[in-house]
Amino acid sequence: MLSGYDRRQALADGTAGVITAILLVPQAMAYALLAGLPAQYGLYAAIVPPVVYALFGTSRTLAVGPVAVAALMVADALAGYAATEGEWIEGAIVLSAEVGLLLLIAGLLGLGRLIAFVSHPVLSGFTSAAALLILISQGGALLGIEITRGTAPVMLEALIARASAIDPATAATAAAAILALLLARTPTRRGLEAMGMTHDTAQLLTRTAPLLIVVAATVVMALIAGSGEPPVAVVGTIPGGMPTPGAGLFEATGWITLLPSAALIALIGYVESMTVARVLAARRRERVDPTRELVALGLANAGSALAGTMPVAGGFSRSVVNFEAGARTQVAAIITAALVAIVAVWFTDWFETLPRAVLAAIIVVAVAQLINLREAVSIMRFDRGDGITLAVTFVTVLLFGIEPGLVAGITLSLLIYVWRTSRPHMAVVGRVPGTEHYRNILRHDVERHPGTVIVRVDENIYFANTDAIRRFLLDALEQSDDPRYLVLAMTSVSYVDSSGLSLLENLDTELRLRGIELHLTEVKGPVADRLSRVTALEPLFAERVHLSLERAVRHLEAG
Amino acid sequence: MLSGYDRRQALADGTAGVITAILLVPQAMAYALLAGLPAQYGLYAAIVPPVVYALFGTSRTLAVGPVAVAALMVADALAGYAATEGEWIEGAIVLSAEVGLLLLIAGLLGLGRLIAFVSHPVLSGFTSAAALLILISQGGALLGIEITRGTAPVMLEALIARASAIDPATAATAAAAILALLLARTPTRRGLEAMGMTHDTAQLLTRTAPLLIVVAATVVMALIAGSGEPPVAVVGTIPGGMPTPGAGLFEATGWITLLPSAALIALIGYVESMTVARVLAARRRERVDPTRELVALGLANAGSALAGTMPVAGGFSRSVVNFEAGARTQVAAIITAALVAIVAVWFTDWFETLPRAVLAAIIVVAVAQLINLREAVSIMRFDRGDGITLAVTFVTVLLFGIEPGLVAGITLSLLIYVWRTSRPHMAVVGRVPGTEHYRNILRHDVERHPGTVIVRVDENIYFANTDAIRRFLLDALEQSDDPRYLVLAMTSVSYVDSSGLSLLENLDTELRLRGIELHLTEVKGPVADRLSRVTALEPLFAERVHLSLERAVRHLEAG
Repeated sequence: MLSGYDRRQALADGTAGVITAILLVPQAMAYALLAGLPAQYGLYAAIVPPVVYALFGTSRTLAVGPVAVAALMVADALAGYAATEGEWIEGAIVLSAEVGLLLLIAGLLGLGRLIAFVSHPVLSGFTSAAALLILISQGGALLGIEITRGTAPVMLEALIARASAIDPATAATAAAAILALLLARTPTRRGLEAMGMTHDTAQLLTRTAPLLIVVAATVVMALIAGSGEPPVAVVGTIPGGMPTPGAGLFEATGWITLLPSAALIALIGYVESMTVARVLAARRRERVDPTRELVALGLANAGSALAGTMPVAGGFSRSVVNFEAGARTQVAAIITAALVAIVAVWFTDWFETLPRAVLAAIIVVAVAQLINLREAVSIMRFDRGDGITLAVTFVTVLLFGIEPGLVAGITLSLLIYVWRTSRPHMAVVGRVPGTEHYRNILRHDVERHPGTVIVRVDENIYFANTDAIRRFLLDALEQSDDPRYLVLAMTSVSYVDSSGLSLLENLDTELRLRGIELHLTEVKGPVADRLSRVTALEPLFAERVHLSLERAVRHLEAG
Repeated sequence: MLSGYDRRQALADGTAGVITAILLVPQAMAYALLAGLPAQYGLYAAIVPPVVYALFGTSRTLAVGPVAVAALMVADALAGYAATEGEWIEGAIVLSAEVGLLLLIAGLLGLGRLIAFVSHPVLSGFTSAAALLILISQGGALLGIEITRGTAPVMLEALIARASAIDPATAATAAAAILALLLARTPTRRGLEAMGMTHDTAQLLTRTAPLLIVVAATVVMALIAGSGEPPVAVVGTIPGGMPTPGAGLFEATGWITLLPSAALIALIGYVESMTVARVLAARRRERVDPTRELVALGLANAGSALAGTMPVAGGFSRSVVNFEAGARTQVAAIITAALVAIVAVWFTDWFETLPRAVLAAIIVVAVAQLINLREAVSIMRFDRGDGITLAVTFVTVLLFGIEPGLVAGITLSLLIYVWRTSRPHMAVVGRVPGTEHYRNILRHDVERHPGTVIVRVDENIYFANTDAIRRFLLDALEQSDDPRYLVLAMTSVSYVDSSGLSLLENLDTELRLRGIELHLTEVKGPVADRLSRVTALEPLFAERVHLSLERAVRHLEAG
């Protein structure tokens, strides 16, 4: 991987590594809290997994570590499972181990196409709804009131019911942090540019804002509190040192209980990582390998489990920052991990007076970007089925939770696709005069062939559409005077399942009784191979399969 | 419907009506017991619903009434819901009402294609497993021991655990009934034929065997019991008279709880009815209308609810008997219903000493025919995916129950189809010298066009395969020296969803940055209509879409 690695690349990777680390430290702590874990577990998840990914992954710039949506999914999965903090941590480790194993197994089986099951509308609706759910869940931390996790309506109701208990100091801290984070973006960048800084440098400098805000808030709170109790909820004592590798891992129960949740976390983690990795790779004409990504992300999560912490994935905003900060290779990620490790070992007590509301503010500002209304609108405009899928996924996540929403979205997208192909495009065709081309008789001025009905099937013949195909063929025969031949043009048929086989068998028998001969043309190699092995279709394949429509028609006209 | 109805038809319908009624009376009582209801409820379900179906259905010979699989599904749905007999009956009525409404709504929405979601392997595995489950569930009634309903292993375990409690009198009665039922088929028919009877008459006579056996068993048991207690469990007092229309219907709770079960009963009832109706219609070159069948079956089930009884469907064996007995129209069904009504009103006390073991024997012999091993084997041989679907459905029904099995089978069949199309067939093509045909460069000796890569996509472009298509295209470009044009032949593309749209948009942008022009050919009308409305694709559709590959190639060679 590192052959030809030169000084220029090292410098670029070094800069990117530092910038990403500055962004990552507060985010990692925030996402651990979102997952229901102590803050330091986020730091642990930002050390071992990215190094493992760096060694095995195919993306040069993907930043692997704790991410918001996976953190929420962990909290959701553990809500009904863990009662004590110890059980919660154990549960998170079990999830990491299972996510790792599932991805690894999928990778070893070469199932990179798993991504195929999560359509764009499902991912879009799911991500927006999950982000909204995270926003609402942070309401408590932002306002200084306790609310329990739940569906969006439940949490909103709790927030409203307890509105009188809002803590002014916490709310003010949160508001200040959010304001500072928002100002640190475009306004500050523009200001720096006005002061003569280049766009890129200004942009990179503004990336350091979250850490600066965290440090400032921590220092201010330390000064206010003095040696007494701080006036708002703070992170508190974070034990320093590195994680103790997987103490509770093999003692943990609930491997079976957590497996379905792990499967969904693995699927979403993989799909999101691949999406980011591919977008970034395309910008520099690089490629990512779906199967090797499964293995690399599997190993990264296994690393997470061994390090005793939560599942990880490739994070969208962090990877973009890493990329834009100039990262060339995964050396940047290793530098980031080293810096986070230094913080985790020696500097955790610096964050003792960090207000939790500030971490909540960082979460809120980060996930707000995941809500993509414009994309939703354009999807809804382009395709009604996709729009319905997106809307159902979105609403189900908010009303029933993150896992039901994901399952509903995926199921619905499959149902809609199958429903769509259940009425395949078909056409009765005739010859374009003077050519060997055959076209739809309804759209073109073509020659008909008395006694012969030629039908083109524009879809695979499989369980969902055999019924519609059968009806179309019978109707076409009924509309023809004294048909003697039915010719099926199979140009677009790549696959015939056993329901399709039944259709062909029954059709052949039924038509023979009615004195009509069934012929096939342009049967694709793999389809012909399988059908011709079926005893009932032997007579058909022996004499009535033709290489092209033209040959079939000539044969029938001659015979 | 009855115009042109003549004496010959009336005679045929009359004979068929009587024969079917003779078969139906014992079956209807048996299926009511299978559903957990008193025997007379089966008779009620055999009166109103078939008359309603006769008025609205499009099949001339489908015999609608209580059927075995739906009866088992009713028992399953009510097991966790109803405690008393009254609640059980109420629940069955609610299910009938919901099944009726769901089918009616589907019919009014024109969703006849719903049948598309239940593939042949799912139906085959489901039916065989349900039949096996029914067989096992009758074990208790056949042997005179009480077992509770449950999954196949649970019931088998209970039977084995209580084997010492087998009641010899009941077991002997059951064995005699089963033997008699089996002998009444082929052996008796052959005997009658040997006595000079025609095959058809002999066959019809053997159909009366179940009723003869029921009458014989009842009489014998009455003689044995005298005025005392009969030695085996009997049907007992059946109140005569017609059903009281839907007393408990609007007071019944649990409409929401039972809805998912009702949806599955409706789906399976519809699919089985359509399957039977279509097979019979094809034999006489008649047609059934899928949408009108939804309405007719919906109304029949609504009739069932109003009559205060269980859901109904078109039964396989009974419809075949009706057809083979010569039924020409639904007049036969009306005659059958009238005869059953006469039994229900005046003759129910005749069945007071009918042993339950005899009804169990009738169920066992009837459903054993539903287990179709040969079909299973041929499906497994033809298609591995279909074989897996069938096996998973079968095993899940036996181990986890009838509803989980159906849901698992349907979901798996959708996943397998989408998985299959997620790696679409694609080919780099070139011109067959001297023609305008383009063929796969790997299989044919064709001309290549320097600087131009032509790819044919043999599948719809949708969420499951955009990733694979993208990779294929990038690979094809990489293997070409200095490509300037990428031409996509869209002959087989009937549908592009929003994920497919993203692919085309991104591809167009990415290729432009690399100095490669994307061109499309043979875009189908509906696809072109939708894509050309998208702003990002306007430049593409303005200049780079061609009617045929030949025109595209000529254009590019000229330009």
